[in-house]
Amino acid sequence: MTHTDQQMMSRAIALAKRGRYTTAPNPQVGCVIVNNGDIVGEGYHYQAGQPHAEVFALRQAQQRAQGATVYVTLEPCSHYGRTPPCAEALINANVTRVVCAMVDPNPAVAGRGIALLQAAGIQVDIGVLAAQAQALNPGFIKQMSHQMPYVELKLAASLDGRTALANGVSKWITGPKARSDVQHFRAQAGAILSTSATVIADDPSLNVRWNELDVSVQQVYPQSALRQPTRVIIDSQNRLTPEYQLFHLPGETILARTRLGTEVWPDSVQQWIIPTQTNSKQLDLVALLSQLADYGINHIWVEAGACLAGALLQQQLVDSLILYQAPKLMGSDSRSLIAITGLTSMEQTPLLTITDVSMVGEDIRIIATVHNNK
Amino acid sequence: MTHTDQQMMSRAIALAKRGRYTTAPNPQVGCVIVNNGDIVGEGYHYQAGQPHAEVFALRQAQQRAQGATVYVTLEPCSHYGRTPPCAEALINANVTRVVCAMVDPNPAVAGRGIALLQAAGIQVDIGVLAAQAQALNPGFIKQMSHQMPYVELKLAASLDGRTALANGVSKWITGPKARSDVQHFRAQAGAILSTSATVIADDPSLNVRWNELDVSVQQVYPQSALRQPTRVIIDSQNRLTPEYQLFHLPGETILARTRLGTEVWPDSVQQWIIPTQTNSKQLDLVALLSQLADYGINHIWVEAGACLAGALLQQQLVDSLILYQAPKLMGSDSRSLIAITGLTSMEQTPLLTITDVSMVGEDIRIIATVHNNK
Repeated sequence: MTHTDQQMMSRAIALAKRGRYTTAPNPQVGCVIVNNGDIVGEGYHYQAGQPHAEVFALRQAQQRAQGATVYVTLEPCSHYGRTPPCAEALINANVTRVVCAMVDPNPAVAGRGIALLQAAGIQVDIGVLAAQAQALNPGFIKQMSHQMPYVELKLAASLDGRTALANGVSKWITGPKARSDVQHFRAQAGAILSTSATVIADDPSLNVRWNELDVSVQQVYPQSALRQPTRVIIDSQNRLTPEYQLFHLPGETILARTRLGTEVWPDSVQQWIIPTQTNSKQLDLVALLSQLADYGINHIWVEAGACLAGALLQQQLVDSLILYQAPKLMGSDSRSLIAITGLTSMEQTPLLTITDVSMVGEDIRIIATVHNNK
Repeated sequence: MTHTDQQMMSRAIALAKRGRYTTAPNPQVGCVIVNNGDIVGEGYHYQAGQPHAEVFALRQAQQRAQGATVYVTLEPCSHYGRTPPCAEALINANVTRVVCAMVDPNPAVAGRGIALLQAAGIQVDIGVLAAQAQALNPGFIKQMSHQMPYVELKLAASLDGRTALANGVSKWITGPKARSDVQHFRAQAGAILSTSATVIADDPSLNVRWNELDVSVQQVYPQSALRQPTRVIIDSQNRLTPEYQLFHLPGETILARTRLGTEVWPDSVQQWIIPTQTNSKQLDLVALLSQLADYGINHIWVEAGACLAGALLQQQLVDSLILYQAPKLMGSDSRSLIAITGLTSMEQTPLLTITDVSMVGEDIRIIATVHNNK
């Protein structure tokens, strides 16, 4: 039966992914109910406030849930939130067996849903396709286990690791397919983090533009469901003014500052006062990320310059690197990808594992996990 | 029959590749003879001085060559060299049809083999899998069409395009599989080009070490057939002395200098005097490459530092880039991959097309074609 367990969990994981653009800050969860070899119910979590995956699947299965096996990508919940606990619903439906890919990472919850099911005489098996299920929800897991957001750092450079010529010329290093690919990553994030330097230099919109998403994404993510990630802009010197276009686009913006400014901002803009690092004028990135986690943002996509990239990496705050490389060579007097200096041994360099390399149009996309010491 | 033509030519190309480590400076050529749907003869060129692919295939086919179709990856030769012309041998064997992937690129030869066959009443078809056949012999084709060698530039860097920390620490940026992969490229080259700076810094051997080749390479390339590419070391200031290990390893070494030195060199070492560039102390790279082409070297593998890499790229002398990227970030004060400066617009940057990206152990290997204006 192991083979079928994996097939059914794989199906539940595929269902879970249908929520990848809409569930934030909730986790993506999928559920498949099988009775006597037949799939009798399927569901996935679509949006916070809407029913959980198990509820949709149970509704579809109706009385055929009795005696069935339930495949679910995350341990069923045990608490009364905006919806009643799924563990209770499964017990009431008289299912016989529940297969979970992983335990809920929230230490306050972990295992309580499972215990409820077992106490009701239901067989519970845990760990089928666990790694794939974990990959669905890096932000949710990081938030629950570390009370910090999962940070994806986007970088784009030439093959020799440069971002602009010596004179600053940089527009469109990468091609249109890479830029569309960035939209897909933005669309999955809870927030997009950038800096006043980037805003001043480029006046970017830092939003999700539905018409720039790949057709395959548009098919599962209708324009009516478009969710804008929160824009978080580090502006420690209060250099920004309300004229920049991103302050007037749909979606909220958080200005992370070290002191309150007196400008008049649109209602969608908040000023957050973040402490500076000890003995420094630099805004404390750990404090900012921690506060964003408290605010309910668990997955951050960073698009900024070499300075913020270097600071995040040196403070070991980056979980994943997404590097686009254009088929160009820009030379040794051009601008560097990452502002880190003073490394004196190879052991001090950030340690990465490359998990995916692929062509995106004429560019290369490299995805790497960053190994931090904490 | 087109389908079968491609299948048979694909087989001939696979046969040709068996000579990839041994044919230099001759081209890799494969041949398949088919009579009435049966493969009756196969052959490939193994080494200069040995029979051509067609001769081996005809020997195998014997009288069954009569009325047969011959698939050959390169136009059969028409001239008396170390072996009699293959076109004549095919005519004498009474074959009915010859399918060539490509015409011989040598302007003095191009089409004469085909004309001989056609004059004898043999049907000749040209161009089946032409691109794959051309890819077998970039050095031979460049030599014949431009009287210059095909230049592959090997580079290795971190993901941010750096080759050493600010203090010079660089040893083993890339992993053991990437280093073994380099052996495989060296083994296919006619020469390995480097500089006195690299020799002085690393005392490298710049040879092919059979026991470091991948097992899949060893299986088709017996140790007894090991061929050492010519080592070509640019030493324009006569900084090298006979103590370095590469001068005492099997295989010949050419020291490219601007004036004769008085050191006593082993017999395997030649000093070549190359002019300097106009108004410069730099050795004229075009003159060096041209002289190497005259010497019979048509495929050069470059392993050197940022200066030679930059000079070759800026003078548009590089045909292909092989870039190994280690999963590391070395920072903005570390050493640059390519010494090119003064670019002011993106149009001035070397234009590349990425043709292959793959993982080699924990590193990435990128292969790119360089588009030069000449």
